[in-house]
Parts: sequence; C-alpha cells; structure tokens
Amino acid sequence: MSTLFLRTLREDPAEAEVASHKLLVRAGYIRRAAPGIYTWLPLGLRVLAKVEAVVREEMEAAGAQEVHFPALLPKEPYEITGRWDEYGPNLFRLKDRKGSDMLLAPTHEEMFTLLVKDLYNSYKDLPLTIFQIQNKYRDEARPRAGLLRGREFIMKDAYSFDIDDAGLEASYQAQREAYVRIFERLGLEYVIVTATSGAMGGSKSEEFLSPTPIGEDTYVRSAGGYAANVEAVTTPIPDSLDIADAPAAHVEDTPDTPTIDSLVAAANAAHPRADRPWTAADTLKNVVIAATNPAGERGLLVVGLPGDRAVDMTRLEAALAPATVEPATEEDLKKRPELVKGYIGPGALGPQARPADVEFLSKDDSTIPYMLDPRIVPGTRWITGADAPGKHVFDLTMGRDFVGDGTIEAAEVRAGDEAPDGSGPLELARGVEIGHIFQLGRKYAQALDLKVLDVNGKQQVVTMGSYGVGVTRALALLAENNNDELGLKWPTAYAPYQVHVIAAGKDDAVHDKAEAISRALEAQGIEVCYDDRPKVSPGVKFKDSELIGAPYTVVVGRGLADGEIEFKSRRAGTSTSLPVGDVIDHVAAAVRADLA
Amino acid sequence: MSTLFLRTLREDPAEAEVASHKLLVRAGYIRRAAPGIYTWLPLGLRVLAKVEAVVREEMEAAGAQEVHFPALLPKEPYEITGRWDEYGPNLFRLKDRKGSDMLLAPTHEEMFTLLVKDLYNSYKDLPLTIFQIQNKYRDEARPRAGLLRGREFIMKDAYSFDIDDAGLEASYQAQREAYVRIFERLGLEYVIVTATSGAMGGSKSEEFLSPTPIGEDTYVRSAGGYAANVEAVTTPIPDSLDIADAPAAHVEDTPDTPTIDSLVAAANAAHPRADRPWTAADTLKNVVIAATNPAGERGLLVVGLPGDRAVDMTRLEAALAPATVEPATEEDLKKRPELVKGYIGPGALGPQARPADVEFLSKDDSTIPYMLDPRIVPGTRWITGADAPGKHVFDLTMGRDFVGDGTIEAAEVRAGDEAPDGSGPLELARGVEIGHIFQLGRKYAQALDLKVLDVNGKQQVVTMGSYGVGVTRALALLAENNNDELGLKWPTAYAPYQVHVIAAGKDDAVHDKAEAISRALEAQGIEVCYDDRPKVSPGVKFKDSELIGAPYTVVVGRGLADGEIEFKSRRAGTSTSLPVGDVIDHVAAAVRADLA
Repeated sequence: MSTLFLRTLREDPAEAEVASHKLLVRAGYIRRAAPGIYTWLPLGLRVLAKVEAVVREEMEAAGAQEVHFPALLPKEPYEITGRWDEYGPNLFRLKDRKGSDMLLAPTHEEMFTLLVKDLYNSYKDLPLTIFQIQNKYRDEARPRAGLLRGREFIMKDAYSFDIDDAGLEASYQAQREAYVRIFERLGLEYVIVTATSGAMGGSKSEEFLSPTPIGEDTYVRSAGGYAANVEAVTTPIPDSLDIADAPAAHVEDTPDTPTIDSLVAAANAAHPRADRPWTAADTLKNVVIAATNPAGERGLLVVGLPGDRAVDMTRLEAALAPATVEPATEEDLKKRPELVKGYIGPGALGPQARPADVEFLSKDDSTIPYMLDPRIVPGTRWITGADAPGKHVFDLTMGRDFVGDGTIEAAEVRAGDEAPDGSGPLELARGVEIGHIFQLGRKYAQALDLKVLDVNGKQQVVTMGSYGVGVTRALALLAENNNDELGLKWPTAYAPYQVHVIAAGKDDAVHDKAEAISRALEAQGIEVCYDDRPKVSPGVKFKDSELIGAPYTVVVGRGLADGEIEFKSRRAGTSTSLPVGDVIDHVAAAVRADLA
Repeated sequence: MSTLFLRTLREDPAEAEVASHKLLVRAGYIRRAAPGIYTWLPLGLRVLAKVEAVVREEMEAAGAQEVHFPALLPKEPYEITGRWDEYGPNLFRLKDRKGSDMLLAPTHEEMFTLLVKDLYNSYKDLPLTIFQIQNKYRDEARPRAGLLRGREFIMKDAYSFDIDDAGLEASYQAQREAYVRIFERLGLEYVIVTATSGAMGGSKSEEFLSPTPIGEDTYVRSAGGYAANVEAVTTPIPDSLDIADAPAAHVEDTPDTPTIDSLVAAANAAHPRADRPWTAADTLKNVVIAATNPAGERGLLVVGLPGDRAVDMTRLEAALAPATVEPATEEDLKKRPELVKGYIGPGALGPQARPADVEFLSKDDSTIPYMLDPRIVPGTRWITGADAPGKHVFDLTMGRDFVGDGTIEAAEVRAGDEAPDGSGPLELARGVEIGHIFQLGRKYAQALDLKVLDVNGKQQVVTMGSYGVGVTRALALLAENNNDELGLKWPTAYAPYQVHVIAAGKDDAVHDKAEAISRALEAQGIEVCYDDRPKVSPGVKFKDSELIGAPYTVVVGRGLADGEIEFKSRRAGTSTSLPVGDVIDHVAAAVRADLA
C-alpha cells in the first residue's frame, strides 16, 4: 500500500448517484476521464481481468473461438446494412486524413459477417461461433451511473454462423447456456426476458436482466413464468363486439373538457350511464407524436388508446425503431389545424378522414397515420373528441364509425395487466441489461452477401446470431450488489486482492510479522494487499480496507504481544482472534473454500 | 484444425510487400479491415497474448503498475499542451453528439499527467511509474508493411513521475533496462540510438531500433560506439578559417549552370584552380523549402549547404518539428522574384539581404530565413549563386561576405562522416523502431500544473519520462525475422502452438494415435494444434503446418505400422524418426528445453 498507485477518497464524487459509481471511484478502482469514459486504476484492472477471464472461459467452453476486431472501422459495411444511419447520434463518426468516413464500432455484426465471408465458403465450415472481448463505443445521450452506462465500455460480443434455422437455434441455445453459467459464476441474479431487437434487427431476442432498483430497464413477469422487457410486451387482443348492438354515435357539448379527467366528470354530470359511472377507460385518447427517422425527417402520427393509459415513449420508440419519438410540439400542431387540441377525434384521423384517392403514407400532408392500441377492437364504443372545441362524440364505435391505419404497442404496461400468454397478471420490476442474445437470421448475411455452398452444392445465405455481455457493466453490478455503508465487499473470486493485511502499530515486530504473513500467504498463491504504510494510523488503514473491500482482513496489532492476530471477514462481518501459528492455514482455508 | 477458425492462403495478399505482412495474412493470423487496421484471428491473438505477457512481466518487474486509459479522449488536455495542433493530420479527431471535440489518443502523456495530479500531492508519493498496454491511433499518411506501420496498433506506454532530475534519470534507467530485458526475451536484436523527441518534447530520448533492411528508420553507428537515429546526428563543426587570407569575392559569368554538376564543370573549364579541380564540395547550394506549421501556415526558408550534399527531408523535418516540410513549388518561387532558380545566393538571403531595420522572422515578407549547414563556418570560401541568371560568385567568404540566420541539421548524413563524438567514421543502417524512451522533463507537468509538495513543503513541478514499446510491431518483427520460403517459423516461446500434430493417413489407427499424442502432450502443459481434418491430404497438411510455423511437428503416418513417428523441427530443419513410446517424452523435452 505504500507504493500502490491508489488514493482513497472520503467524499463521494459529485456526479455519482449510484453506490457502485461512488464506491469504485472513492476506493480507487476507476477515475472519470470524460463523461461516460473511465480510466482503470490498478485495483479496477485486477477485478476486470477476473471478470473477463470468466467470460472467456465460458465462451471457450461453449466452443466459441476468440478473435479481435478493430474499434475504428470504415463506414461502408455499416452503410450497406443501414446501420450507419440507423444508429443516429449514438454512433461516433469521424473522417480520416483522406476524408474517408469511419466509425467507432458500437457492435460488430458487419465485420464478423465479412470476415466469415472472407474465409469460409462451405456448409462444412459451419457451425462457427467466434467472439471478442473489446472496447465498444456508443455516444449515449445521457451517460450515467458510472460504468453502468458509459460511452466507451467493454463488451464480449459473439456471433454464430449456421447453414439453417435448426443450426441457429442450437448455436443460440449454446450461447444462452453459456450466459447462464457466466452470470451464475459471477453471482449475478438474472431474469431472461423476451426482448425487442432494436437497431440490431432479427427475429428473436432475449435479454438477461439483473434485477435492481437502479436499473434503467423495466420488465414484467407473471407468476406463470412469462417474462419480457416492457418494450416486448404484447397486449392480449380482446374479442370483437357485435356492432349491431351499438347505439348510434352522437355529438355532445362538453365545454371545457380538454383533459380525460374533466371529460369523465362532465360526462358523468351531463350524460350519465345507467349501469355505472363513466371512467377514463371509456374514453379514446388521441395523442399526437412526432417521429424522426435516422435521415432526420420529422413526421407526425397519432396514437389512439384508452384514456386510462399513458403512451409509454420507450415502447412506442421500440415499435417505431429506428425512428426516435417525442410528443408533438405546439409548432407541430399549428401546421395541422384539423387537430383540435383537447378534442382530437378519429373524425380528423385515419381512413375515415382521408379521401379515398389519397394513398396512405404518401408524402401527401393529408395522410397523418392513425395507429390504435390493440384493445380498440371492432364493436368497442368510445367517448372521444369531435374535432371541435368543447365537443365530444359518444358511442363512437370502432369498425362502424372509425378504423385506424393499424395497431401499435405504445400504451403503458401496468402491474395487473394480463400476460400475453395467459399465464396470469403481470408484475413490473427494474433491472440492468447484462446480456442480450439475438437470432439475427439472415439480415446481415443477406445484406453483405455471406453465402456458402450447401450439401447440394447450392449457394445458401448463412443464418446468424449475435450475443453480447456487458463486461464493465457486470463488474459495476458486482460492486452495486456487494457493498455497505463502509465500502465495497467483493466476492472472493472477484476481489482485487483476497486478503488485506494490516500492520496496525508502529513497532518493527508488528511490521515484520505483517510482512511475513503477507509473504507466506502469497507463497500459497493467495493475492494479498499489504498495508505497510509506516505513518498511517490503524484507524485510517481499517477505513481503507473496508472501502477497498477485500473479503478477508488480517490485522497484526496489539494482540501480537500475546501471540494473537485478528482475522476479519468483510462479508460475514465477523472478527476472530487467531493464534499466530494458525493464521496462514486458517486464512488460506477460508479463501480456498470460497474459490472452490 | 477441423474446427479452428482458419483458412490459409496460397497466394500473397496483393498489397503486401514485406514477409511478415504476407505470411501473417497467408497463415491466418491477421486480416486487413481497413488501410493500416487489422483484425486478429485466433492464431494471431495467441501470439499477441504471449508478447504482451513478456512486456507486462518486465514492466511489473521494473516496479511499474498497470492502469488502462480510454482511447477516446477529450480535446482539452491536448490543447493545453499544444499537441492537439502539433499532431496535425496524424491525429484522429471527432466530435461527440454535443459537438465536443474529442480524439483517439496517439499517446497518453496528458492523461497520465492529469491522473497523477488528481491522486498525488507529495514528494513522498514519488517515484511512480505506471503503464498500460492499449490500442493507439495514428492516422498515418502511408500505413504500410502490415502491422509494422498501422493506424490502430497496440503499444505499451509507461510514464514516470519524479521530484527531481536524479529521480528521472533513475526511473529512465530502470525502464531502459526493462526494455533491454524485453527485447532480449523476445529475441529481437536492437540498437539503442540517440533520437530526437519530435512532437513528444523533452530533453533526452533514445530509440530501440531493430536492425532490418525493411526498416523505415535510418540510423548511424561508429566503431567507437556512437549510435543515433539519423535525425539526431549532429555535424562536427570544423574550425573557423582566417578571413584575412581570403581573396576578394568576384562574380563570374557561368552561363547555363543551373545545377551543381554543370557549375563545377564550368568552373573547372573557365576558372580552374591551380592546386586541384573544383568539386561540388566547393559550392554552396541554397535550397528553398516550404514549411507548414500545425496551424496550416506555410512559409519559405532557404537551407544553405555544401553542394555535394542533399537536403535530408527527414532530418530537416525533425529540426523544424512540429512543422512539416516539402521542396518549394514553382508557385512558391514565383512570389519571390529575388530567388533566381539555379543561381540563388546569399546576396538575396539572410542578414546581408535584409535592411537593418527589418526584424528577422517578423511577418514581413522580406525576411525569408536563411539557415546554414554547420560546416559553413567563418572563413570558408564558396562558389555560389550571384542571384542573376548565368552568374555565380567565387570566393564568397562566410563571416565576411555573408552570414546565415542560424545553423540547421538538414544535410544528409553519409557513410564515412565522422561521428560527432569523435568515435570514428559512421556507417548507415536501417531499422524498425520497437521502443522509444524519453526524458520529458517538466514540459507536461508544467503545462498541466502537476505539482507536489517537496521535502520543504514547497510546490514543485514534477519531472516525467515516457516510454513506449510497439507491441504489435514487435510481433510483426518476430514474424519478419523468423520465416523462410515455406512460411513462418516461430520461436517456441511465441508460437501460437508449440507442437503441430498431423494425422497423415486415412485409417482410424493413424487418427487415434495422433489424437492420443495430442492429448498426452496437452496433459503435459504443451500447446498443441492437432490437424485432424479427415479429407485433407498429408501434402496440404504439411504445407499448412510449415506456413503456420509451429516450431515442432509430429507426423503420425505410414511409419505407425512399424511403431515409428516422425518428429520435425521447423527451426532446425531436421526430421527424426522416433519409436511411438518415446514421442511424448522426446517432444516435451524439446519444448521445455526451448522455454527454459
């Protein structure tokens, strides 16, 4: 410790919000170099190497072979697949001295595809799974929580190549099982949830989420076993109702009812139902959204959904990927006078508002798309805007009085909603994505022309999977899950040092014994951090050892005169006095038991 | 081999010029991803890990501690030190989504300085040497020779921090000794030469050059032990001559003599010397150079040097760093009518051409700098241009008739030139820079305000060193130095696999025995590449094994029926027949002897 490149801090860094970020900085594992970009100090690098080793071992055990791609790449392959644009501002782009466009890779599907195309040409070469552990770059709008969402971060990314769907399924399962082993070895709790594929594309994908209240991802699960990222939840579609039973629609004056609450109150006051009061669920809310595609073109759409639900912008964005979305602005609305704020209804939207000769989604301004929540099925009756100030229409019936241009999964998911597979009501929880596995299918191979000869000598497009583990994020979660008010408390397998030896006293006997114990433990293959600092008080040394968080601490202090050494377990919170002669065996046994 | 992600190529890649580049690509170690940017395949990654391990071990043995910085960095620290501009087009620059300027670091002096400033504040914290092994980025104008000059490459960079000059000297020596051990362990021949510091700055620097005819760097050495990069060679200054002895200068008609050769011929014809013929060394050549500073400002200067020597643009550029230089163009010359092409002389240059009231190096156009080779000392007499077409001046005497604005090391160094330390004549050789160590001094600490309290409690600017090893380049040199017409032949310590086992036959007995030998060798801790490919001919397998270049090959083939196995040494070029029962011990002993 007298020479270790380390300074512990007593104060939390100003910008840190979560425990892992605070403690990794305070205990001298990482330092911020720029927003979302960190430097690894010696302690951090030791932990990182251990986490990487687990990932590497399990990849190799699953038959994946390691390669290493550049981080700095030419634009062309990403342009062919469309991701140069689709990544939008999340991509770090640059030009080289000759003016060629380049990028810092956020993920490497294109390059892996081209490499396999370069080397392989027969079904006999497949299946193949190759991986790398590498720096990735994403220009996050809001880097946060230290290593949990950075702009330069370490990812293990693997890619599988198969001749057919059955092969892909097998490769996918092999990676899925490797992920289970990785997270179990790391001691990270995980939930495997159905996910959307986002900018990655492909057919099927699952996320490994680690449940934590600081997680940015919301997911749902049912008692019956359904689990999905909230973006991937599909709404069970109710049965249609008989339109013949529906009363005719009728427009009513509803002055001063621009909100759902005011509308429900007015309806109950002036137009009460016989059987029960009107509720927000009886209203059809039409929300105007501005979507921007990767080329920067901005357009409007309207989402129609039951008035008791909000639009979940994350779900909406997933549904419209790669476009980004935001609520329409006053400026947007001014250009569309038919959208009467607070009183927007289907009358001004969708097919019913559109002349028959206008092609939907043409560039014609008159064709604003109208997308409905899946609950709005034929025969359902709604109170909704009549497209005039202070007026609403009642008993407007889907399938008779209006239709949409399609359905969209944009409504918030709520605890208690039915799981789409009928496995019971959903509960919501938060987690951090630590792994994401995709069945990409033939998207990349098709775009980049990766074909091999099949058993009949015919060219076949290869089918691919891609599989990511957030290595730095996993490390951050380990820190997030293993700490207390005093500092970190690492699992033995991932601690930078397994034993922290403290010379708690000024006399030579104390230092000599502490050093001898350190050397003896090291001779047994145990990683020791020896606090030999001559002019630092025992109190400061204790505080540092607790902050740094080695699982075991050996204190050589006053007890030495009586032949006693103190042995502390940071994780169990215990302290034992050991005879000097027993220390090495006892400590070594404790460490070995943890690593077994 | 039946599943290894590998395809060997029979043809050299089109763009490859040097053996290491050709063979590393052909043998499946690397693939080009973009100009000067390479992907590591499984074989390459294995060698890389071994080279890195040697560098890491020797750094740690020298007391350096490992950290890891981001590659993507903010502009500000590099702006403070001036290197944001000085690096010119060699720096990869980009903007993030918020418009902040960022860079891909070519080297990390600034960040290391700031990190130490961040954590340390006392002389008691020093000395400190920290290092990283990391991807570096330089946008080379001419990436070439595969890994030898890439745009993304791996470097070990270390930085030392000391309170005083003696400390820096000790830290520098410790790194220098570590470098000696690294290159000796790698088996790379090296010459330590005095070097210039270039964009790095600082007082003293030495390069470790590995002699090779494909090297880009020219260096000199004398039998007496002098060694320097050609940029760092200083010219021994001759004694001045007595001006009083010099005859008066006289202008002569020398029609059609725009070149040194034509001038010497004309002088000998029309104005012969009594004692000996005129030679080019009697003429003073004035070469017009255009220099561009990092801000992009272009200006002219004239270099005056003996006519028997050329300007060495590399030496000139080192002398003018961080400016870049090129010969002046016709366009440049048109703007300076006093420069009469072929007849330029001191009369139009330097102080003698400049009114006394014009400040030298002012922005005034009239003040073109005139820099002289150090051999042009007072009293020397020259034939040189008279600044009029077809006219030269004879006996123009330095110190009487003209002076320069200073001296410059820009003339070519030639074999036979005297070493500056008087240790004898120089010989020239070519090498590749594999290490570079700098005594930076206080340049970076001063610029970034890295101070610590000294023993008297006063703030002292820290003094620094920086130390680089080209890790990928060292690997490339290993390949460059260890190959023949058949392929690579790795030293055992750096081979991707130490033993290549070939099943040379179709029957099960051959395959079973080859597999058993592979497993038995692996059980002894030996790294084995087993060529189990069932449908590949022995001939192809032999070719592949030679190309890949494992130091030892075990061939299980026809001899097996007689209880014989073939054992080949790739490096010794020998082949031995061994009884089956002896194979494991014999092979293991050979490998262990190499690694001992």
